[in-house]
Amino acid sequence: MTRFSFDLKATDGKARTGVIHTPRGDIRTPAFMPVGTAATVKAMMPESVAATGADILLGNTYHLMLRPTAERIAKLGGLHRFMNWSKPILTDSGGFQVMSLSDLRKLTEDGVTFKSHIDGSRHFLSPERSMEIQKLLGSDIVMCFDECPALPADDTRVAESMRLSMRWAQRSRDAFGDRPGHALFGIMQGGVTPHLREESAKALVEIGFDGYAVGGLAVGEGQEAMFGVLDYAPDFLPTDKPRYLMGVGKPDDIVGAVARGIDMMDCVLPSRSGRTGQAWTRRGQVNLRNARHAEDPRPLDEHCTCPACRNYSRAYLHHVVRAGEMIAGMLLTWHNLHYYQELMQGMRDAIARGQFAAFEASFHAQRAEGDIDPL
Amino acid sequence: MTRFSFDLKATDGKARTGVIHTPRGDIRTPAFMPVGTAATVKAMMPESVAATGADILLGNTYHLMLRPTAERIAKLGGLHRFMNWSKPILTDSGGFQVMSLSDLRKLTEDGVTFKSHIDGSRHFLSPERSMEIQKLLGSDIVMCFDECPALPADDTRVAESMRLSMRWAQRSRDAFGDRPGHALFGIMQGGVTPHLREESAKALVEIGFDGYAVGGLAVGEGQEAMFGVLDYAPDFLPTDKPRYLMGVGKPDDIVGAVARGIDMMDCVLPSRSGRTGQAWTRRGQVNLRNARHAEDPRPLDEHCTCPACRNYSRAYLHHVVRAGEMIAGMLLTWHNLHYYQELMQGMRDAIARGQFAAFEASFHAQRAEGDIDPL
Repeated sequence: MTRFSFDLKATDGKARTGVIHTPRGDIRTPAFMPVGTAATVKAMMPESVAATGADILLGNTYHLMLRPTAERIAKLGGLHRFMNWSKPILTDSGGFQVMSLSDLRKLTEDGVTFKSHIDGSRHFLSPERSMEIQKLLGSDIVMCFDECPALPADDTRVAESMRLSMRWAQRSRDAFGDRPGHALFGIMQGGVTPHLREESAKALVEIGFDGYAVGGLAVGEGQEAMFGVLDYAPDFLPTDKPRYLMGVGKPDDIVGAVARGIDMMDCVLPSRSGRTGQAWTRRGQVNLRNARHAEDPRPLDEHCTCPACRNYSRAYLHHVVRAGEMIAGMLLTWHNLHYYQELMQGMRDAIARGQFAAFEASFHAQRAEGDIDPL
Repeated sequence: MTRFSFDLKATDGKARTGVIHTPRGDIRTPAFMPVGTAATVKAMMPESVAATGADILLGNTYHLMLRPTAERIAKLGGLHRFMNWSKPILTDSGGFQVMSLSDLRKLTEDGVTFKSHIDGSRHFLSPERSMEIQKLLGSDIVMCFDECPALPADDTRVAESMRLSMRWAQRSRDAFGDRPGHALFGIMQGGVTPHLREESAKALVEIGFDGYAVGGLAVGEGQEAMFGVLDYAPDFLPTDKPRYLMGVGKPDDIVGAVARGIDMMDCVLPSRSGRTGQAWTRRGQVNLRNARHAEDPRPLDEHCTCPACRNYSRAYLHHVVRAGEMIAGMLLTWHNLHYYQELMQGMRDAIARGQFAAFEASFHAQRAEGDIDPL
């Protein structure tokens, strides 16, 4: 059986490209992971997600533990079989969603007690329970259970929270045990304070993980603050393990993160945008609801090979967005995920050729042009 | 260029099978037409609709004239190109929807003035305007503009309405003109009164159409009353032209209509049901929302080859229905349309082999068994 491993193939400045090997298939990095919260990437068939070029999906422990429950998914053969996705799946630990979505949370050293946002039922998550749930789901890449404080917060609060997360990281590692072919990733915390980030990284490396996430970002701090942390934080992590930036982001966030040494990212943005009439293209964001598209026979992006761009006019996309038709979300989500994967492929190629700076310049130049002129 | 024509291949009792030839492809009859109201079969990609075996779609003149307008669709190359469907399209005349959906209708000999249900704007439909709109859309099979009175209604009202529809049928015929490769269908009215049905059929045949619809049914009268009309009304129509029953129906309505000599049908039921967690199978209707499916690893129908049945458990379908995920509507609509097309193919084969009575018996026997037992 293939064991979990990471081959770093090339670097260009701080940008890296490589391959994560798993028993369920390779993950080319930098990798973007579409989010399949409730065992579905919203508005997409899994075959279509694969067709966009995604090597791996993200599943949400918090949502799945509440409905249909991890135990039920395990009984039905695991998350891959349940949702008809045979490639790798990364699951988050549930920690972040408990804090952002659930009601009446109570945090102790042991874990978090909370009420479900769906039916008000009472639940408990801890490092041990999170590891158990992620194992029941059959996740290929398991995330440590951590606490993520809202920013801004003072250093004392950030440090206390980070140290709790590091104790939970050790408990996650202990509970995970030895599962060949499955990986456990640690999550660095420490807010926007360099010495706390460094302390967190050292604690994680001391424990030892198969990969390391930069946590606590993309929580409303803004791109400048995020890039500020990414300018130094990845340097605290081992070069021979994948580095994952959680919950990022817009295309320019992603390019900037890759430039700073990030290998993996996930975000609901391309799918969520797609369901509200928003498209992302080489030339920036396009709102298909806008009346200027109403009679435009041109494709959203003439260079894009996704079904929305190959087979439909902007006028059609505008019509189905306005009419509230499901195909609007289906086509625009497909386009957005296709664009995101094309962006990742472009970066992988550029890094391999040692031309990442030129790629970045071209990326920003195309966006600066803005969307095509109205007819 | 292929002209519009109908080859009746075989009959078995009153049931018929044949092929309608059009420049955009053949339509195997008996045919079920999925409904693509607003230039999309809801929750489906057009490639997927074709994959279910559909040879033809129905588009709604009323919806399309209001949004995005027939003129805009014409400017964009017609409805086929607009919605990425290259096979035949039948459009209704708008008459039925004006009566059922619009506000503040005013009916005169000339036509109908009404207010849009979308934005309250004022519009006018007449035989001439309906023909113009359906031509702008590029419809392959155009329906006469008619009036359909709500049932029950007394004979006087039904007769007056029918005679108005017959005068409108003549005006539709005159306005349609000569359009090789395109067909115009007349619509028989007359309620549940045999002599009015006969009078209507004679008037239509006198005018001369490429096909004939049995109108004014499936408007709430119930299956018994509908079959009562279908027991005799198709006999008033020429045998060498296709016969279309509008807005029908449930699987048993469809089988009963074919048994009575109907060649074409359309209905929103399979797609609408799919979006509310309802599936139609050989064994009847299945409500996937029901808790008995929650842990059921079996497919919806083990003999069905649609993606919902091939790749997912009832437990998954239950989960995504309950979670309100778009994939629930996507998978169940696909399944339902697949089942409907399989039913049509089964009837075509049975009629061709002279075994339609056996097919009917088997159809009813499977349904009588009911859905599979809970685990």
